[in-house]
Amino acid sequence: MSVNQTLDTIFSRTSYRGSFKEEPIPREDLTAIMEAGIAAPSGCNRQTTSLIAVDDPKLLRKIKDLYPNPSCQTAPAFILVLTQQIVGVDGHYYHVQDYAAAIENMLLAMKSLGYESCWYEGNVRPHAAQIADLLKIPDGISLVCLLPVGIAADEVVRTKGKKPFQERAWFNGMVSEGQ
Amino acid sequence: MSVNQTLDTIFSRTSYRGSFKEEPIPREDLTAIMEAGIAAPSGCNRQTTSLIAVDDPKLLRKIKDLYPNPSCQTAPAFILVLTQQIVGVDGHYYHVQDYAAAIENMLLAMKSLGYESCWYEGNVRPHAAQIADLLKIPDGISLVCLLPVGIAADEVVRTKGKKPFQERAWFNGMVSEGQ
Repeated sequence: MSVNQTLDTIFSRTSYRGSFKEEPIPREDLTAIMEAGIAAPSGCNRQTTSLIAVDDPKLLRKIKDLYPNPSCQTAPAFILVLTQQIVGVDGHYYHVQDYAAAIENMLLAMKSLGYESCWYEGNVRPHAAQIADLLKIPDGISLVCLLPVGIAADEVVRTKGKKPFQERAWFNGMVSEGQ
Repeated sequence: MSVNQTLDTIFSRTSYRGSFKEEPIPREDLTAIMEAGIAAPSGCNRQTTSLIAVDDPKLLRKIKDLYPNPSCQTAPAFILVLTQQIVGVDGHYYHVQDYAAAIENMLLAMKSLGYESCWYEGNVRPHAAQIADLLKIPDGISLVCLLPVGIAADEVVRTKGKKPFQERAWFNGMVSEGQ
């Protein structure tokens, strides 16, 4: 029986909040990860997501000083996720969906290449404007997420439990068991 | 050199809007696709996304009558994506990010299993309440997306172009070329 590596990657990905090894990330891998991000679909093909990989030690240091997350302090690279609010042909906005799909693609790409990461969004928000200034991101483009990239130095463990399948997925209608 | 099937899946996925073969989708595959969906991360682990796979012919027919999308008319199964607005520990909402990451996982899972699909969201919206009624989805849970599942009957072609990498991704800062 053949192994479905895509499903294996999806099921083994988890949010890693430990330390990273010091080993730098090859540019080839950072490029592949960002290519995976921009390969995600976008609402009305507006391609509202853009990305900056940071691997310059001085710049990394400055971002780590602005965003003092313990796990991120040891990361040898970051990918910063940027978004633009561009309206779709139907008058609706899909930029949040767009960057979320791009992030998920990148988390899977990282996992498949042997790296760990974690989706940092809410706690990046208070520091986003300062990091955006540092990177000279123009007005109209918002920094929404920071992804560390690195090889795990600690054990990769799933720290948060998930509800069982039966409470989140059904066939042909919702069965509210015990509700 | 070993092949990275996860990256291959990410790069070969595209929005398919053609007809589907009549072949039914094994429950095992629909289950694996939904498992992939709920394996996505969620903001503050709120797990706001839930899923309904539809493969019952009568129910499929009713949904197709409510949502007369030409490509979806031939699909042997749908996955309906549901969301709940549950606030995170930080006072922010991440349900859109959550369902988008779940959808991207499912699109990749489908591709890896030999199926095609397309992320239908905006044009499902006007029909969402009626489909939700049909499926007896309780108040407080919203139907936000419909994904057809099937084997392509037509050629799988990329119909929409994407901007080049250089216009969406950078290293160590944004280089505004020609802007």
